[in-house]
Amino acid sequence: MISRTFARRLRARESLVGYWSQLPVPAVQERVARHGYDYVCFDAQHGFLDYRALLDGLIAVDAGAALSKSGCAGLVRVIANNVGVIGQALDAGAEGVIVPLVDTPEQARAAVEACRFPPKGVRSYGPMRASLRSGPVTADMNDEVACVVMIETREGLANLEAIAAVEGVDGLYVGPADLMLSLGGRTANDEALADEFEATLARIAEVAERAGIAAGIHTNEGTVAARRLAQGYTFASISSDLNHLDKAAAGHLRDARA
Amino acid sequence: MISRTFARRLRARESLVGYWSQLPVPAVQERVARHGYDYVCFDAQHGFLDYRALLDGLIAVDAGAALSKSGCAGLVRVIANNVGVIGQALDAGAEGVIVPLVDTPEQARAAVEACRFPPKGVRSYGPMRASLRSGPVTADMNDEVACVVMIETREGLANLEAIAAVEGVDGLYVGPADLMLSLGGRTANDEALADEFEATLARIAEVAERAGIAAGIHTNEGTVAARRLAQGYTFASISSDLNHLDKAAAGHLRDARA
Amino acid sequence: MISRTFARRLRARESLVGYWSQLPVPAVQERVARHGYDYVCFDAQHGFLDYRALLDGLIAVDAGAALSKSGCAGLVRVIANNVGVIGQALDAGAEGVIVPLVDTPEQARAAVEACRFPPKGVRSYGPMRASLRSGPVTADMNDEVACVVMIETREGLANLEAIAAVEGVDGLYVGPADLMLSLGGRTANDEALADEFEATLARIAEVAERAGIAAGIHTNEGTVAARRLAQGYTFASISSDLNHLDKAAAGHLRDARA
Amino acid sequence: MISRTFARRLRARESLVGYWSQLPVPAVQERVARHGYDYVCFDAQHGFLDYRALLDGLIAVDAGAALSKSGCAGLVRVIANNVGVIGQALDAGAEGVIVPLVDTPEQARAAVEACRFPPKGVRSYGPMRASLRSGPVTADMNDEVACVVMIETREGLANLEAIAAVEGVDGLYVGPADLMLSLGGRTANDEALADEFEATLARIAEVAERAGIAAGIHTNEGTVAARRLAQGYTFASISSDLNHLDKAAAGHLRDARA
Amino acid sequence: MISRTFARRLRARESLVGYWSQLPVPAVQERVARHGYDYVCFDAQHGFLDYRALLDGLIAVDAGAALSKSGCAGLVRVIANNVGVIGQALDAGAEGVIVPLVDTPEQARAAVEACRFPPKGVRSYGPMRASLRSGPVTADMNDEVACVVMIETREGLANLEAIAAVEGVDGLYVGPADLMLSLGGRTANDEALADEFEATLARIAEVAERAGIAAGIHTNEGTVAARRLAQGYTFASISSDLNHLDKAAAGHLRDARA
Amino acid sequence: MISRTFARRLRARESLVGYWSQLPVPAVQERVARHGYDYVCFDAQHGFLDYRALLDGLIAVDAGAALSKSGCAGLVRVIANNVGVIGQALDAGAEGVIVPLVDTPEQARAAVEACRFPPKGVRSYGPMRASLRSGPVTADMNDEVACVVMIETREGLANLEAIAAVEGVDGLYVGPADLMLSLGGRTANDEALADEFEATLARIAEVAERAGIAAGIHTNEGTVAARRLAQGYTFASISSDLNHLDKAAAGHLRDARA
Ligand SMILES: [Mg+2]
Ligand SMILES: [Mg+2]
Ligand SMILES: [Mg+2]
Ligand SMILES: [Mg+2]
Ligand SMILES: [Mg+2]
Ligand SMILES: [Mg+2]
Repeated sequence: MISRTFARRLRARESLVGYWSQLPVPAVQERVARHGYDYVCFDAQHGFLDYRALLDGLIAVDAGAALSKSGCAGLVRVIANNVGVIGQALDAGAEGVIVPLVDTPEQARAAVEACRFPPKGVRSYGPMRASLRSGPVTADMNDEVACVVMIETREGLANLEAIAAVEGVDGLYVGPADLMLSLGGRTANDEALADEFEATLARIAEVAERAGIAAGIHTNEGTVAARRLAQGYTFASISSDLNHLDKAAAGHLRDARA
Repeated sequence: MISRTFARRLRARESLVGYWSQLPVPAVQERVARHGYDYVCFDAQHGFLDYRALLDGLIAVDAGAALSKSGCAGLVRVIANNVGVIGQALDAGAEGVIVPLVDTPEQARAAVEACRFPPKGVRSYGPMRASLRSGPVTADMNDEVACVVMIETREGLANLEAIAAVEGVDGLYVGPADLMLSLGGRTANDEALADEFEATLARIAEVAERAGIAAGIHTNEGTVAARRLAQGYTFASISSDLNHLDKAAAGHLRDARA
Repeated sequence: MISRTFARRLRARESLVGYWSQLPVPAVQERVARHGYDYVCFDAQHGFLDYRALLDGLIAVDAGAALSKSGCAGLVRVIANNVGVIGQALDAGAEGVIVPLVDTPEQARAAVEACRFPPKGVRSYGPMRASLRSGPVTADMNDEVACVVMIETREGLANLEAIAAVEGVDGLYVGPADLMLSLGGRTANDEALADEFEATLARIAEVAERAGIAAGIHTNEGTVAARRLAQGYTFASISSDLNHLDKAAAGHLRDARA
Repeated sequence: MISRTFARRLRARESLVGYWSQLPVPAVQERVARHGYDYVCFDAQHGFLDYRALLDGLIAVDAGAALSKSGCAGLVRVIANNVGVIGQALDAGAEGVIVPLVDTPEQARAAVEACRFPPKGVRSYGPMRASLRSGPVTADMNDEVACVVMIETREGLANLEAIAAVEGVDGLYVGPADLMLSLGGRTANDEALADEFEATLARIAEVAERAGIAAGIHTNEGTVAARRLAQGYTFASISSDLNHLDKAAAGHLRDARA
Repeated sequence: MISRTFARRLRARESLVGYWSQLPVPAVQERVARHGYDYVCFDAQHGFLDYRALLDGLIAVDAGAALSKSGCAGLVRVIANNVGVIGQALDAGAEGVIVPLVDTPEQARAAVEACRFPPKGVRSYGPMRASLRSGPVTADMNDEVACVVMIETREGLANLEAIAAVEGVDGLYVGPADLMLSLGGRTANDEALADEFEATLARIAEVAERAGIAAGIHTNEGTVAARRLAQGYTFASISSDLNHLDKAAAGHLRDARA
Repeated sequence: MISRTFARRLRARESLVGYWSQLPVPAVQERVARHGYDYVCFDAQHGFLDYRALLDGLIAVDAGAALSKSGCAGLVRVIANNVGVIGQALDAGAEGVIVPLVDTPEQARAAVEACRFPPKGVRSYGPMRASLRSGPVTADMNDEVACVVMIETREGLANLEAIAAVEGVDGLYVGPADLMLSLGGRTANDEALADEFEATLARIAEVAERAGIAAGIHTNEGTVAARRLAQGYTFASISSDLNHLDKAAAGHLRDARA
């Protein structure tokens, strides 16, 4: 089943679980989608993904969604807060974008405008694959696109409330690694700063809740995702195909040589 | 460390553990290789792999091997027992091939000849990447290539001893799924035939041992690989990146929604 | 809607209309599938298609089928009557193959066996994408695969009845261009031989009908397809994206300069 | 015949007809070019095109042009008004760029400078394919490149005369869909605003004429292109391979089932 | 200038010089073609070339030929003497094929038939790119295709006269490396056998001359090509982009560190 | 041998020789790396390289480095001074970037920050391949990345000392072609300006020396590289595979026809 309601579910602060994909293999994304994830997010910033991987991968998510019970949306974490690359992801059929490194309300506004057609925004018209699943009224197409901004820097934290208040921002998304480094972590996962990190996560979720928008976070495992959702986050991504594969390969080798 | 001794280790019936790769992502194969597997085998018969995936993937195995303690060889399970495709895999730098559906000693001989330069065989000269790691004497190059044939059909079982006796066959490799179907299984993993299946596996390992050649088998998990190696198999592949990823995605979703 | 019943519809001699695709663009095949064609056939013999185009294209057909009212099957016209390439197409999710240049009942039998798992045939087990939509019982998987053979040579015509009688052949498919050349045509569409050509087409449809199997044919336009279906053919392909595009580009230029 | 005079013909306000290409298939662009179009424009903003599609496609246009009577130029509609991407298109052999979303004279100036080598502009030197058809004098190379800016926003309309007056702007190009949305259209083709839309088109053509530069427009059909050229536009693109293919597939299916 | 007369020039035993290409970069082949080589041969047996590299590369040769004074033909050294792969190369626009490992007159006949449409041969009709430059009469298309067979084995040498006598064989082509190994060479370039090797080369050229067909040979440098042409060979390939690049990189490093 | 010390060697002003790669063929870069170059730089601004070429090419450099005596680093000349594209190159495993068109100290600072993780910079965390060869402490990862800025414009020359003084700039790199054009050259290699050009080169090397940072330059041949290194430059790139191949093809043809 394919449902084009991801943006609405996100805005309604439903509890959503997604998978984070970094490998350029549509046949992988098709499999993930059919398992029943609410979304598959293509990591075009750090993943091994070029444009063709996004385009064919988003098609594959729709094919996999047709095999799942509840549908699955394709999202893209874009490489930059840029009208061209955001438009390209949406044209390719993404139901939403996650925009990295948003530090100010101005940047948040730019992200929103890149997701909306004129006169609400500056997205250029050419909804190549998007139009297959939408009607022609652009206001409706605007509604079907989720705009999520990443909070992952010191400046972004300082401007948190103002960013959350920008009209059209549908959700905040925590990048834990950069956030930890911004807090002064020596590594992306610095135990010494765990308390401050957790407090910051709690604050972000609260700000989102007060603003009535979604709060999302990156996790490495399903159990962590469950915990974050229980703590007030409304959506959580499990990351990633590359990491899971790396761990599986290491584990099986240990087992084989045991 | 890169060692070009895979064929020698295989012939010496050392205990070897490999990983079975079906995804066209060299950066994945590099990671697997550096974990310390003895080989990574590219599945060009059933995997999502085209020629470029083989070529760039074999390079990546060499890059990963340089990061591992013990080296790692790249192998290819070719799509057919064909001199062209076997030569192409070897030119691309594979240290050996696993040839499917070998039913007769004649077919085994053809596989061997496809792996050897004249006058020993019919491999055409053009060792594009292979020559980077070999000297120019073709007899030496022949020695560095492992030729493994798959036993996976009723006819192959019937000719088992004769196939194992073909000069130049360096190992037998069991394809459990097709073997099970050949025994009459309703599915590729039919419990009703488990006893006959195990007996057949034991027989294959024994035939290989008597012939003084390697015996290999396909497994889905490291623990199974360990068991097969304990039972007399000299090498075992753990399969595959695609399956491991599929299971991980399903498992994390269950955990996240628990 | 996705239905895995193409082979059954074909065998029931339902009237089916397909589209013939030669361009390596999954986003094109998705669009074609959603229009409601009964099948999209990927031309891996003469089209501009490599393995990745087949794999990602078959996924795209499934995505497009989910948007159509009645489903759409992905087929592959393979480059050769070869167990490796036929298996690769089926693993990638094709619901059937069209096998070129089948001249004898032996060749027809080989095509059938390449489509069936042991013990019925010699297809190697590894239903990568196929398994997403099938259960694990291989006899069922065999049933879901359509095997169509092409009649396009003088020898094929001579052996027509014997080929149609081979168990497991689900349909005959006329390649009009090669058939015309085999009849002695100077070009692939030689008017001088039109009568003999039409008589031959009629004979092929009759032989298929008597054998109780499907009869298919290649056409360049929808109107021709309609006529062939009215004449006794049970399925017709309209060919092709490349040709249609070529004609459209020429026509619009004429209009623009008029 | 290959002629490197596109920029001169454009500047001379000759009447030119182009084709708009969105599919990553060089063999398609070769065919289009040989039909005699004055240009093929690669849509790198909304088309399914990555860098390799541009590079190999521009080569294919040159191959097709060699088969045509009058030559054919390759252009690129770039994804952004950015010196890097504009330079990359020109290095790949484009004889001109169409730059989207130009709203101000400053932006128009930036587009021009991205197309010119120092000291006239800021294009970085590396005319990979461009140098195959040009001499080494950079002033000459500058002359051979057409710089066309898109008028498609409210702000662009407000600055129309100023943009047209920027030295080095060789033409204005209307993006009808975004223009319609900017005028307040509910859809990209809103009948309710047809009069205002037509008046705006007329104004743009007049401004271009007064400025002595070319005026171009996007159309869906050859007949519309003919009409626009008759109305004062000096060049018109017919768009696109994807749309034409989509319509052909739908039409043939209707015919086949009639 | 593009001329489709390569086959005729070859048959007329004109002296022709070609370049041997192993890198999958159309922009490289375009450059080579414009230098004025009589042909560029794509090495699909040992080169790093997949189908897309052939297709886009053959287009690029035509683009480069248009820049040269005398035209340049694209050829393909196919991976196997197989009707499917030979047809695919010709459909993609190759003006001829070089078929490896031809050992017997029967194999030579098979190569010829794979190059000719019925009733002369068994090539399947679908001249995708070939038709852009040919008329529709298949006998003419047959005439425009050069069929060259490789002599590189002991058996091939034994059958030399019989192979040369097969109707439709347009030329013999020496693979020096395999030939040397077949003569018993320890390496592909074994000085110890130089006399026998040279005598064999002379014999092949004589047999070709007596049969009235072309005689070609593989060389590593232009000076060697010149020598072979002076010795009676009618065409010579200089091999290859990969080797030349390798040598250049090594040489410049020596110079830089001198 | 793989050494991750390129940045340290560069900062120590060791004499380094690199190769400039513009062809998307990892198997070529592997060969170049094993010859013993200190670095291979991928030209993502003007080369025929997309993201996949960078990623797989950087893996290939590591594979080739493992075959060399002294290691070889992979660098990327990025298409723009942009945090997204710089991060992508470093994630893919580049040990440094060469950033074009740096005109001001502010731009130099932006380049540096794009290369450093917070709090020192703004690189987003996701060291996909980089982490295979580094520890988890981000300060260490920062140290291992070389940031080189290009001096190639009039404005850059005017700000030379200020740019060299920016903390974190590890080297200056001369783009001779653009520099020549900036000086007023009619071509990229204008003999009339040779004296001013040489004086400018000398000045850049001196400024770098006084600032205690590296000075690099682009050359076409090893002999020129040797001369530049003798004149005070600390690193020199030899450019490029494409040019060397083009020259080799032209030269061999001359020889063959002599
Ligand atoms: Mg627009
Ligand atoms: Mg050979
Ligand atoms: Mg099998
Ligand atoms: Mg520059
Ligand atoms: Mg045919
Ligand atoms: Mg981040």
